[in-house]
Formats: sequence, C-alpha cells, structure tokens
Amino acid sequence: MAAIEFWYEFGSTYSYPAVMRIEKLAAQAGVELRWRPFLLGPIFQTLGWNDSPFNIFAAKGRYMWRDLTRICEAEGIPLKLPPAKFPQNGLKAARLALAGESARWTPSFTRAVFAANYAEQKDISEDATLVPILDALGVDAEAAFAAANTPENKDALRRQTEEAASRGLFGAPSFTIGDELFWGNDRLEAALAWAQPSSKG
Amino acid sequence: MAAIEFWYEFGSTYSYPAVMRIEKLAAQAGVELRWRPFLLGPIFQTLGWNDSPFNIFAAKGRYMWRDLTRICEAEGIPLKLPPAKFPQNGLKAARLALAGESARWTPSFTRAVFAANYAEQKDISEDATLVPILDALGVDAEAAFAAANTPENKDALRRQTEEAASRGLFGAPSFTIGDELFWGNDRLEAALAWAQPSSKG
Repeated sequence: MAAIEFWYEFGSTYSYPAVMRIEKLAAQAGVELRWRPFLLGPIFQTLGWNDSPFNIFAAKGRYMWRDLTRICEAEGIPLKLPPAKFPQNGLKAARLALAGESARWTPSFTRAVFAANYAEQKDISEDATLVPILDALGVDAEAAFAAANTPENKDALRRQTEEAASRGLFGAPSFTIGDELFWGNDRLEAALAWAQPSSKG
Repeated sequence: MAAIEFWYEFGSTYSYPAVMRIEKLAAQAGVELRWRPFLLGPIFQTLGWNDSPFNIFAAKGRYMWRDLTRICEAEGIPLKLPPAKFPQNGLKAARLALAGESARWTPSFTRAVFAANYAEQKDISEDATLVPILDALGVDAEAAFAAANTPENKDALRRQTEEAASRGLFGAPSFTIGDELFWGNDRLEAALAWAQPSSKG
C-alpha cells in the first residue's frame, strides 16, 4: 500500500489545518499514514533562529495569522485568536504523542491538543490541559505520562527530530514519501497524489 | 470590475510559475490584472538578509528547487536547471517592465524575461539578453532603455518597492486585492477567488 509520513510540530500554526485534514484525505486517497511528531526548535536553532520565524519577521507573522484564518474559514476548522501564547512549547505533547503510537491514540490525541491550542486558547504545555485530553480519550493519563517520560521515549523523540533534519525538513507540517519531501499544509494534496503509484505514471 | 494587483520580482523563483499562469487564470475569473514589478532586495535587507533566503538557508533552497521542478512539471512550464545564477539581478528588467506599462508590453516582456532565466539559462541582467527580447516584441529597445533609465522611472520603481513594503509584502509573488494580501504562487487561485465579489458572500 502506498504510504506517507506526516511530520508535525505541536507549536506550528500551519500544522493545525494539516492535522485536522490529513486522516480523511489519506483515507480517500488510499494512502497509509504514519504520524511523526518532532521538534522544530532544534532545527530552527541550526538556522540561527531562537524563536519562531513568524515572531522574528513581523510582516511574515502578520500575514501568517491572516492566511491561517482564511484557510480555517475555508475548511470549516475552528480558530480562536490570539492563542494562549505563540509559539507554544510542544515538548510534553510531542513526547506523549510518540508514546501513544503503539496504542494508536496518537492521531486523536494530536487533534485534541491542536484544538486546545487554536480553538480553545489553552496552554498545551500544562498538565491541566493535557490530562483532561487523555482522560477524554480513555487513556490512563498517569501511565501515559510515565511512558512519555522514560529515557527511551525521550531519546526516541530526539532521534525522530534528528531524522527529520537529516531528511531535509526545515519546517512543519512536512510530508515524506520515501525521499520525496513536501512542505506545508498547502502541499498536502500534492503529497498524497505523489504517494499514489498510479499518479506518477 | 474586480481587480487584482500582481507583485513580482524578476529574481524570484516562485514568481516564474505565477508569471506564466496568471493572465489566463485572471481572464477566466473575470478579474482585471495589474502587473506590479518590484524589488525584493531592499525588503530582504530590512529582514537582515543580504542574499536570497534560499541561499542563506540551504535546506530551504534544496527543497525550493525540487518543489519548483514539480510545479513546473505539473503545469507544463519549461524549466532548465541550474539557472545562470541565483538570484539574478532583476533591476534592469524591473525598470524596463515598469517603463512598458503605458505601452502595455509589460506582461509579454515579463514572461519572456522569466523564460530566458528559467528555461534558457540566460543572465537577465545583461543587455545581450534583454535587447533581443524587446526586439522580438516589436519594442524599440533603445527607446525602452532610455525610458527605463530616466530619473522618474527609477524613482517610480523605488516607490513601487516602498509601497510593497508598506502594504506588508515580504516575498514574491504576492497578490493584493485592496488590503487583502496573498503570498506565493500556490495562493494565486485563492487570490483570484477572493477578487470575485460573489465568492465572498
């Protein structure tokens, strides 16, 4: 079966519409989907940025919020601005998302955390945000945090981020099909089309 | 009639597919089109960049060339890589394009210059590239260069660039409909849809 890897960062704005759209679109395209949370911070640091480029470059930031608003309106995705803070620290959420992969709650957890950030103005770095999300999914929050905080899981997230960088990723969301890289929510459809063997002739 | 302003920079890669696509799409949408060449260099300098971000940030640059290749393949737009240099100095071409506005050869001149850059690997800062393009369009090259190099026309390009910055532009291609800004070849369709009064309810 054709397969696509979906790389996202919990602090990334354009990851939000991709997170909300990808499962349905991948299913429609018949493309297997692997969710790969990673951290953009370490990658941005190698580019010389110690903050989001949307904060460093003010005109880009102003445009991004307007553009995100248009996209969410067009897609019917709830958006409430401004967020609690930007960018939010997605480290805990990323560790949890990675820990949830084997039990398969990563996609629903990810959607709920992005909704908490962008539709509910919550701080996603706080346990007070994350625990009720896990509860609502029927996941044992205490066990999930314990799994997220093992040295093995922390190291797995570090390796996931290193793999992202080594595969040429520099932003989120990104999509990979083997060595083929697509960047941006606006490339999701093209990435899924690429993942379908028949479409490449 | 609905109207859109098309802001482009001769050195910009993603301006190429937009330049080649916009006239037909605007006509299909029934949207009046104004071509507005400007210079990105002065705007990039205010962001702290003295080169294209695609050169400064290597991973972004590698991705951009691959992405541009996919886009041109999908659109049937000829692309021959690498270009003569990147980014090219588009100052002369921009002054000429602005000078051609009243006589209405700006669009065809612009398309020919972009094709020279990206399909023919020519240096678009050289008169040896620009003069034959003007000749082929039936434009008096000597008169065109004279008009391009008047203090008034040089100043008009400076003001055009200042207007771009003051309207929040930070990259090319960009599209404006009043105060509404769209950035990127991949936003051309959305910008044209926005320009149609009926589509905004």
